[in-house]
Amino acid sequence: MQDGEQFPGRFITLEGGDGSGKSTQARLLSDFLKTKSIDVLLTREPGGAPGADEIRELILTGEPDRWDAVGETLLFYASRRNHLRLTVWPALEKGQWVISDRFADSTMAYQGYGNQLGEDVVSKVHDFAVGNFKPDLTFVFDMPAEEGLRRTDDRLHDEDRFEKMDIAFHERLRDGFLDIAQKNPDRCVVIDATKSIDAVQSELRRITLERLLA
Amino acid sequence: MQDGEQFPGRFITLEGGDGSGKSTQARLLSDFLKTKSIDVLLTREPGGAPGADEIRELILTGEPDRWDAVGETLLFYASRRNHLRLTVWPALEKGQWVISDRFADSTMAYQGYGNQLGEDVVSKVHDFAVGNFKPDLTFVFDMPAEEGLRRTDDRLHDEDRFEKMDIAFHERLRDGFLDIAQKNPDRCVVIDATKSIDAVQSELRRITLERLLA
Repeated sequence: MQDGEQFPGRFITLEGGDGSGKSTQARLLSDFLKTKSIDVLLTREPGGAPGADEIRELILTGEPDRWDAVGETLLFYASRRNHLRLTVWPALEKGQWVISDRFADSTMAYQGYGNQLGEDVVSKVHDFAVGNFKPDLTFVFDMPAEEGLRRTDDRLHDEDRFEKMDIAFHERLRDGFLDIAQKNPDRCVVIDATKSIDAVQSELRRITLERLLA
Repeated sequence: MQDGEQFPGRFITLEGGDGSGKSTQARLLSDFLKTKSIDVLLTREPGGAPGADEIRELILTGEPDRWDAVGETLLFYASRRNHLRLTVWPALEKGQWVISDRFADSTMAYQGYGNQLGEDVVSKVHDFAVGNFKPDLTFVFDMPAEEGLRRTDDRLHDEDRFEKMDIAFHERLRDGFLDIAQKNPDRCVVIDATKSIDAVQSELRRITLERLLA
């Protein structure tokens, strides 16, 4: 466990529903930081290490009822633990900056709020798997549930089990992400994901410089 | 979750270190109960359902440092949740008797005691994944750590990551199983696994009849 350990690197996470533009923005932010001579590792969850990628395949494929919310939570955290131990923590130890497209807030929002397992219950698994380790900065990509659904409908090639859920689920998901951001103001910044790619990226760059390089 | 639910079937688990004869005894006990016109489902962990079997493969293969004890615990419980939901609970609901070669006590003994994660910590993940559900009867197969190691050394075809561990680990493992049995006298019976196959099987049959069919 890396409880309370201080790393020389910085850990930035991008969170939010599908179709909110996280992956594009993570790549653009990584490119920008490289121009500042920062050694950046761009990664994603679920996955980001060989074992974690195998768990990703297990989670995202197969019959819809294959995993329930409890099973999913355990698999996401097994994958996260592997990603942290073998990818994120070693990079941060070397002083790299790590940008992750999704991290623990996604499990809390999807399984804790969306699937209604509850915050307390998911927190227990989180503490077991992750300890006190936290991102230095988290961007929470926010947009109306209908807009996120519409955008993912346009992306048929990327459809998976989690995108086939109904609007009520997506409302709970959005509320969950906003609740997480409100409870963690030190690390979380809510981003209006309905803005243009350029506008969102400018905001990410400005906030990253202010918070982590000032 | 199936918290506190009463099933018409009965759930029997066999626990203990590798090489203690659990699999053979589980099969013999299943055969015996069938002669009593009991509808028996023989299963095992990790595995016992298609998703759980895929997790089993992930756990038992790959580099020795691929999963740490925390990651293993999460994977074992993800597998267990799948096994319960899709195999064990449906069978018990139909009135079948389910015999499982390993169940939750193995995770507690291996990761909680052997890997020294601690009882409290593993219990939290257990409660999240399994709730209050418990076996009706658990046989804890006990033998000196050296004897278990010697027996598994003879079984080279079945070598896996968990059998390559040292004697101190196996001592903690044995103590863990005995501690679990002592704390759960209502459901656990310790079996001297150094006895002959016939002697052990006679004891299992006698205790099963006394406890579950009297």
